[in-house]
Amino acid sequence: MPRVRDLGIYESALPCGPLNGITDVPGVAVGHCTVIEGEGAFTPGTGPYRTGVTVVVPHPGNLYEDKVAGAAYAINGFGKYTGLEQVRETGSLESPIALTGTLNMPRVADALITLALEANPYIGVGFEATGRQGYASVNPVAGECNDGFLNDMHGRRIGEAELRQALASASTGAVAEGAVGGGTGLSCFEWKGGIGSASRRVPDQHGGFTLGVLVQSNFGAAAELVVSGVPVGRHIRPPDARPTNTGETSDQGSIVMVIATDAPLDGRQLERISRRAGFGLARTGSTCHSGSGDVVIAFSTGYRIPDRPSTPILMRDTLANEQAAVTTLGQAVVEAIEEAVLNSLFMSETMVGRDGNTRHGLPVEEIAAWVRKTTESDCTRMP
Amino acid sequence: MPRVRDLGIYESALPCGPLNGITDVPGVAVGHCTVIEGEGAFTPGTGPYRTGVTVVVPHPGNLYEDKVAGAAYAINGFGKYTGLEQVRETGSLESPIALTGTLNMPRVADALITLALEANPYIGVGFEATGRQGYASVNPVAGECNDGFLNDMHGRRIGEAELRQALASASTGAVAEGAVGGGTGLSCFEWKGGIGSASRRVPDQHGGFTLGVLVQSNFGAAAELVVSGVPVGRHIRPPDARPTNTGETSDQGSIVMVIATDAPLDGRQLERISRRAGFGLARTGSTCHSGSGDVVIAFSTGYRIPDRPSTPILMRDTLANEQAAVTTLGQAVVEAIEEAVLNSLFMSETMVGRDGNTRHGLPVEEIAAWVRKTTESDCTRMP
Amino acid sequence: MPRVRDLGIYESALPCGPLNGITDVPGVAVGHCTVIEGEGAFTPGTGPYRTGVTVVVPHPGNLYEDKVAGAAYAINGFGKYTGLEQVRETGSLESPIALTGTLNMPRVADALITLALEANPYIGVGFEATGRQGYASVNPVAGECNDGFLNDMHGRRIGEAELRQALASASTGAVAEGAVGGGTGLSCFEWKGGIGSASRRVPDQHGGFTLGVLVQSNFGAAAELVVSGVPVGRHIRPPDARPTNTGETSDQGSIVMVIATDAPLDGRQLERISRRAGFGLARTGSTCHSGSGDVVIAFSTGYRIPDRPSTPILMRDTLANEQAAVTTLGQAVVEAIEEAVLNSLFMSETMVGRDGNTRHGLPVEEIAAWVRKTTESDCTRMP
Amino acid sequence: MPRVRDLGIYESALPCGPLNGITDVPGVAVGHCTVIEGEGAFTPGTGPYRTGVTVVVPHPGNLYEDKVAGAAYAINGFGKYTGLEQVRETGSLESPIALTGTLNMPRVADALITLALEANPYIGVGFEATGRQGYASVNPVAGECNDGFLNDMHGRRIGEAELRQALASASTGAVAEGAVGGGTGLSCFEWKGGIGSASRRVPDQHGGFTLGVLVQSNFGAAAELVVSGVPVGRHIRPPDARPTNTGETSDQGSIVMVIATDAPLDGRQLERISRRAGFGLARTGSTCHSGSGDVVIAFSTGYRIPDRPSTPILMRDTLANEQAAVTTLGQAVVEAIEEAVLNSLFMSETMVGRDGNTRHGLPVEEIAAWVRKTTESDCTRMP
Repeated sequence: MPRVRDLGIYESALPCGPLNGITDVPGVAVGHCTVIEGEGAFTPGTGPYRTGVTVVVPHPGNLYEDKVAGAAYAINGFGKYTGLEQVRETGSLESPIALTGTLNMPRVADALITLALEANPYIGVGFEATGRQGYASVNPVAGECNDGFLNDMHGRRIGEAELRQALASASTGAVAEGAVGGGTGLSCFEWKGGIGSASRRVPDQHGGFTLGVLVQSNFGAAAELVVSGVPVGRHIRPPDARPTNTGETSDQGSIVMVIATDAPLDGRQLERISRRAGFGLARTGSTCHSGSGDVVIAFSTGYRIPDRPSTPILMRDTLANEQAAVTTLGQAVVEAIEEAVLNSLFMSETMVGRDGNTRHGLPVEEIAAWVRKTTESDCTRMP
Repeated sequence: MPRVRDLGIYESALPCGPLNGITDVPGVAVGHCTVIEGEGAFTPGTGPYRTGVTVVVPHPGNLYEDKVAGAAYAINGFGKYTGLEQVRETGSLESPIALTGTLNMPRVADALITLALEANPYIGVGFEATGRQGYASVNPVAGECNDGFLNDMHGRRIGEAELRQALASASTGAVAEGAVGGGTGLSCFEWKGGIGSASRRVPDQHGGFTLGVLVQSNFGAAAELVVSGVPVGRHIRPPDARPTNTGETSDQGSIVMVIATDAPLDGRQLERISRRAGFGLARTGSTCHSGSGDVVIAFSTGYRIPDRPSTPILMRDTLANEQAAVTTLGQAVVEAIEEAVLNSLFMSETMVGRDGNTRHGLPVEEIAAWVRKTTESDCTRMP
Repeated sequence: MPRVRDLGIYESALPCGPLNGITDVPGVAVGHCTVIEGEGAFTPGTGPYRTGVTVVVPHPGNLYEDKVAGAAYAINGFGKYTGLEQVRETGSLESPIALTGTLNMPRVADALITLALEANPYIGVGFEATGRQGYASVNPVAGECNDGFLNDMHGRRIGEAELRQALASASTGAVAEGAVGGGTGLSCFEWKGGIGSASRRVPDQHGGFTLGVLVQSNFGAAAELVVSGVPVGRHIRPPDARPTNTGETSDQGSIVMVIATDAPLDGRQLERISRRAGFGLARTGSTCHSGSGDVVIAFSTGYRIPDRPSTPILMRDTLANEQAAVTTLGQAVVEAIEEAVLNSLFMSETMVGRDGNTRHGLPVEEIAAWVRKTTESDCTRMP
Repeated sequence: MPRVRDLGIYESALPCGPLNGITDVPGVAVGHCTVIEGEGAFTPGTGPYRTGVTVVVPHPGNLYEDKVAGAAYAINGFGKYTGLEQVRETGSLESPIALTGTLNMPRVADALITLALEANPYIGVGFEATGRQGYASVNPVAGECNDGFLNDMHGRRIGEAELRQALASASTGAVAEGAVGGGTGLSCFEWKGGIGSASRRVPDQHGGFTLGVLVQSNFGAAAELVVSGVPVGRHIRPPDARPTNTGETSDQGSIVMVIATDAPLDGRQLERISRRAGFGLARTGSTCHSGSGDVVIAFSTGYRIPDRPSTPILMRDTLANEQAAVTTLGQAVVEAIEEAVLNSLFMSETMVGRDGNTRHGLPVEEIAAWVRKTTESDCTRMP
């Protein structure tokens, strides 16, 4: 399946990186575990399952020892999360980010703790035993989207084994997209949604940094969908779409957006660029439904925070011109979020889930033709 | 000059009110004072002036005695404001909202105080003299956009006389748009910007409420402009536009957005719908530049807060289903903000200001033709 | 063991309710499950355990169907929580609040989901099956404090069975305090900490409402402790206390504070009174260490939010004079938080935990004598 | 008049700096302009006046060219402010901070603009004329407290001349306290309030930084006052004090708190320590009345932000261990805020204002004797 850019119907002002994915940020890895089990009638607690977990790993080292600057921002804070409070307070991230189906979230957070304890056995043990000050805890970070239309949410199928598998598969190469990992059972604009990714590179005079995003898309009404500015949702909708886009769909919902960059942004600066993510969502037609948890988690691999610094002061690179950086990296966020959402749609195929509930894959060729027809009349539009 | 809807190149999912302006919310009035004085070389402090002030008055009564629920939300908190802190804390608004050119703001806030004291002479006098508890103050609310390209900001030309004139002219009829009042000296997408307004009516099953917005537009790079989904800024730009839209324009900026509704939203609920305003901005091409103060001030005429209640408890209408209301009214915000920004552009004519600096009015027919050409190929797009 | 008020060394400006606990708010129930297992050397994952879970249940009905207004506020957002994001966004609470030891938190959140699904089996099933719109999720709310000094955090000993036990034991009577439930393994001012509660009644002219709090206390350095204004920590410290109170103890930490009231406060108003909780903490000597998660979760039983309202508008009681109410209820918060923290200390006995780590119970008589000696010289101080 | 520490009735865990004032932070200067004019009957608009303005100047250079990291935090956001929004967004401060009487605030903000334009005439002129990019504005920062009990607020007596005088008098020496500058007409705990200052030095192993505060105090009910932990307000109150401290005084209000440090804190970190200011207020007896604007503005002279950086990246000192720093500097905030409030009371003499309204100066010896009597019984309390 082609990504939206490969179809020649999408272009951006800023260039993308070589993989056009979050893994263009050096060191960032992504892994998935996908669970597709059973079919037919839904017996809560036993399937069928269309679910999974996706992990974003900021760097290959020990993340607890060598934290990254982090931020969390709720455009609309519906949804269930673990760990956002401490990310906000400390401006740091010490855990991989795990994205899963709604009711799996606590089990995945618990599994993140298990793995952090394995890697850092002194956590919770304390200074008598280890020479470390205190008996610190660890802050797992997990988010979710509701996959209940296709999946047996009750079963909470994802736990430690699946998280291990996702982490074991994590790679710095091209990101698998669509109905994989935490995107397996999702719906977006009433089509099949899932995982999407994209990246941008900012000009050298602004530092030449890379910014990448990964989204878990699960929001929107079919009538709202916009591709490259063309309101395709007015014309092309799945057979089972709800009739209108006038507020009938308040319980649709959610997108978790992960932003990574190698620009040395601190937590406040990461929050600033995170606020631009809504502008990217809007380009896809989103009107930010009330029941949609539109949440951003951002980190910088260029701003590291040691767990045990040896001195009170550290020399580090910081941005000299925050305003220019936020404008440029903010534009990168807007564009990359838009493209990542589109990729999550274009890369997802039809899936039949519990009770025979069906989410149709976007009719890629039909959509592409519609967009081309419109934009070709706009002769110089896609140069 | 035609508004964007009159040109047949804009449509919305939700219907607009009869005036398609903030004054469709019953009781809401808008007034302007426009100052266009002098021309030629800029001698700071003496002109030329291209500035003014616009007021939004929530209801015709004594607003201090009979406050309205209010909220303030910074999408990007650049810019200078007075009064937002207390609106946030108390969830109430007790002053007309005044919008002016950047450096005028304190003088306008001072004038708002003068007028509040005239209407409520016991403010600052106290209970001994009046039987009122305490010697309360009043919270004026004023915002601004930078009109320095066309206007002598140094002169701070707007004060009490101009505010009085704006209030005296306030009307519940159709809103004057374009280069009037606080929009006189503004630039938007490097074209002439200014004041724009629009409204939406939500379906009866969601309460049949009206929501209106008024914007003071002053943001964006020409290359970014999007009209009805068509990226016209890629093709049509003013002669003096900056060459790119890749972060070169970080100091462009600002838009103040006022939202009014008769739905009985409390302060927190008003803040929730205010967060949707960015989705409307994004539809016009905004990427939320760092130096752009993108700020929302919202109020509800359907949720009144008496200054001197006689009992601790008050029975009032409240929303039973906040999630449905936020979705529907949020969609109204997204659409109305988009249309109001477009109106601010379409209704503004070329203006020459200080030092001969020129902001060209949007070439309305050229833009409209481009949009029509594109969307006509999309035969069913504008049904 | 006597509560601080029973010792005659504490008084308040506002009167407490009959139980002087959060259960003075009609309908509110509290339950605990306490786990004390094993002793001696710590083998991570197998004990010894000094941990548990405490639940606060807002009312005896179906909380998912009949939600209460809610708020969450981080004075210092260290620590791990689930559910705060949605409470903030929607201003509502649809789950009992569970407080436990740090690393148990995800397992407890998972158990809250299990119980919510049992009570509301249509969650996650959807409208085809049930006639309900959508296939909504549920938002469990859980907080934690670090009990790692006494407890094997690695073992994550608390899960569904323990949560069921806590809920089964929930009572609207007097609150068990000290080393029970989520307070079992905690430390406060380097003494044994745990669960504490208190309540206040506001004067009839302000509505005659009741406000109660429950805290899970786990913060502070011994040298900081203040009781009734007397800095007892300067003189009386446990044998193993750290030598100073000058920033040596940055990883001490956390207190979760639950506030309940029958005053009809909405989410924003609940957040306002929640911000006063820090003033109560300060009275006990807290300086809000960086590593301390000082977090408030508040709800109102007097402001109900139906899950399935039949009309868009609802008539309800609201506060007519928010400023008077926030002042009075805020004072209730300040006082009740102070007293609840003191109760958590005064009601906790010495506990020996993993590796023989010992938290000494506050020497109640010695402390009381010191406070009395000081305040008696202040002859009219305790009238 | 003696400061509280000189009376031997106050001590702190952390040592104060040589001046025990905000001017202990190298480079920070404070100036006042005090206006005491007229007496007798109040004719709104013509006096009598008991008002003024106080300025805090972060460093002696051009603050617009060489900004300092900044933060703003509302513990309770009542009150009128200009400039906080942009300080929050950019994490920087480019203006002296001016504190004045409520209704003077806009005029003082306007005067700050005048002075910024004089020092930086290219503001608002733009790049064509100056070679600078854009035509930027300037963000004046002003706060206020309500001096209406003693002062003719209507007259708005403070403007450009008074601001110039305050700035001209600014000194890095000992801070004048009590009824001076913006503190001239204020009331605190129903006694005469005003300006107070204090400082702390953190231990060398935490960097050896200095932190200073300056407060403009105007809050509280007499019955609430606490000095060094002794609830003196229960016994000693001014003759005209309101009878109770149970919520009768909701319109009392406000304190603006300025925090300065040479520790290299960024905006987010400054906000974190600002949140500790409430813990200092609470030590003086505050319960954070609803109508009290309790607001903090903080800056770091150790973290400079150039207006025109020549490169995208800057090497700078940053805190290596944020948690330790926030704990230690947070303790400094708590202590210094407490002592500064006490200084504002102890250094203020009785003042008669408009209509013969009288604010009694704290009976310093009587209070000191009461505190000594209490604490002497606590023999080792003041070692």
